Amino acid sequence: MNPIGVFDSGVGGLTVLRALRAAYPSNDFIYLGDTARLPYGTKSPATVMRYSLQCASLLVRRGIRCLVVACNTASASALQELRLAHPSVPVIGVIDPGAEAAVAASRSQHIAVIATEGTIAGGAYQAAIRRLNSAARVTAGACSLFVALAEEGWVDGEIPQAVARRYLAPIFSGTDMPDTLVLGCTHFPVLARSIAAVLPRGVKIVDSAATTAAALLRQVAPAAAGRGRVRWLATDDAARFARVGTSFLGETLHAADIEIVDLIAA
Amino acid sequence: MNPIGVFDSGVGGLTVLRALRAAYPSNDFIYLGDTARLPYGTKSPATVMRYSLQCASLLVRRGIRCLVVACNTASASALQELRLAHPSVPVIGVIDPGAEAAVAASRSQHIAVIATEGTIAGGAYQAAIRRLNSAARVTAGACSLFVALAEEGWVDGEIPQAVARRYLAPIFSGTDMPDTLVLGCTHFPVLARSIAAVLPRGVKIVDSAATTAAALLRQVAPAAAGRGRVRWLATDDAARFARVGTSFLGETLHAADIEIVDLIAA
Repeated sequence: MNPIGVFDSGVGGLTVLRALRAAYPSNDFIYLGDTARLPYGTKSPATVMRYSLQCASLLVRRGIRCLVVACNTASASALQELRLAHPSVPVIGVIDPGAEAAVAASRSQHIAVIATEGTIAGGAYQAAIRRLNSAARVTAGACSLFVALAEEGWVDGEIPQAVARRYLAPIFSGTDMPDTLVLGCTHFPVLARSIAAVLPRGVKIVDSAATTAAALLRQVAPAAAGRGRVRWLATDDAARFARVGTSFLGETLHAADIEIVDLIAA
Repeated sequence: MNPIGVFDSGVGGLTVLRALRAAYPSNDFIYLGDTARLPYGTKSPATVMRYSLQCASLLVRRGIRCLVVACNTASASALQELRLAHPSVPVIGVIDPGAEAAVAASRSQHIAVIATEGTIAGGAYQAAIRRLNSAARVTAGACSLFVALAEEGWVDGEIPQAVARRYLAPIFSGTDMPDTLVLGCTHFPVLARSIAAVLPRGVKIVDSAATTAAALLRQVAPAAAGRGRVRWLATDDAARFARVGTSFLGETLHAADIEIVDLIAA
């Protein structure tokens, strides 16, 4: 059975891959991190669309049975074009599953979304939530430093909690606060403990990595028994990919196992 | 008199421009931030060289009397090629001035350099210091989170000091510690107060923005009297450039004053 293809601008999508592997332990995966061109979040939608189509083409040529866009920016800008370009491959992004899970989890339908500056400014989560429930209220906040903390591996202790408190206290204050928090960036699940530590009691955290895996399970059957393998592709710097990626994936990545590919020449 | 040209991958070089304007108040400047392709620090030297040549060509076509490479990554990878491509324009980078100032300031010749991961791994500061004094010892540390803190505008208070302590305590401990610290990233001067607050007494800080301005003054005469003007160019997102750049420059930048240019089509 062909592998499930997953791509991201870098290592953040490894939190999605981790959730997918937990959901599909017997399946093979092929993961592509476009590390030469990261971050996507600061680039224009047209550029992100072009890069995403290049990532998808390479994965489709390698033979995949479905495509997971494990990047919020690419999910917001390129999902429709990816489906048009590859009509025979199911394509799933991270935004709709997160929005669906948040609407399902929230009692008050007042939902907070935290993400990168680009994702928040683009408004894709806010729009996806309101498509599901036009009466829902969304409080959105950009948490740019979470990306740097996650990449540095500073995920527990004084500093990430102080940063989380500074970002989240203004969102979760007063009597009319959200009851659900969407982690709208694939980097954020590695900080979930520090984020949870500063939230008021009872606030539910929706992790879009886990919800994407659950959404894919509803569309694509798992492979038969056995332990699946992962093939690793990146566009630059295997050493950094392996080092930073190890904490996102939760298991050791070796630079020697990462194939460097050229998306432009390909 | 033609303006002084300055370029960087984004807003970090504005700390250099700020120091240059203090040194050359009557001169005109033209500043180019290649915001569409930032950061340069994670890209290969060949790519950084190509981007730097494109930035320089545009500035030279606009008419400049000298070129300041206000970016550590570009200074490390592209200085020689920029000089070859534009033999009639004096080209100055940020690394040699910082190294010279550090060697001049240090009594023990044990010098600490902090910068981004890419600058530290590339070893340009370490090599520049050892070219000046082969007996100098350099302790280098990557401080990636400083970039994110500076861009977020979180430059004073608990969080930047906690981050500075975590990065700097291992470098400044024991009896054989450096006596001089080079801020080897154009983002870091905005954090200088928080950095100074956690350093042992007596450690000197060398700010490569200020030292670059001093080095340029030795090569290029100031313009006559009057208050010089700045022309602003960027390759993407004038709004973010203005917002983040304001704190780096120390004066208000307006998005409407920023001309968006296309370096590839140009």
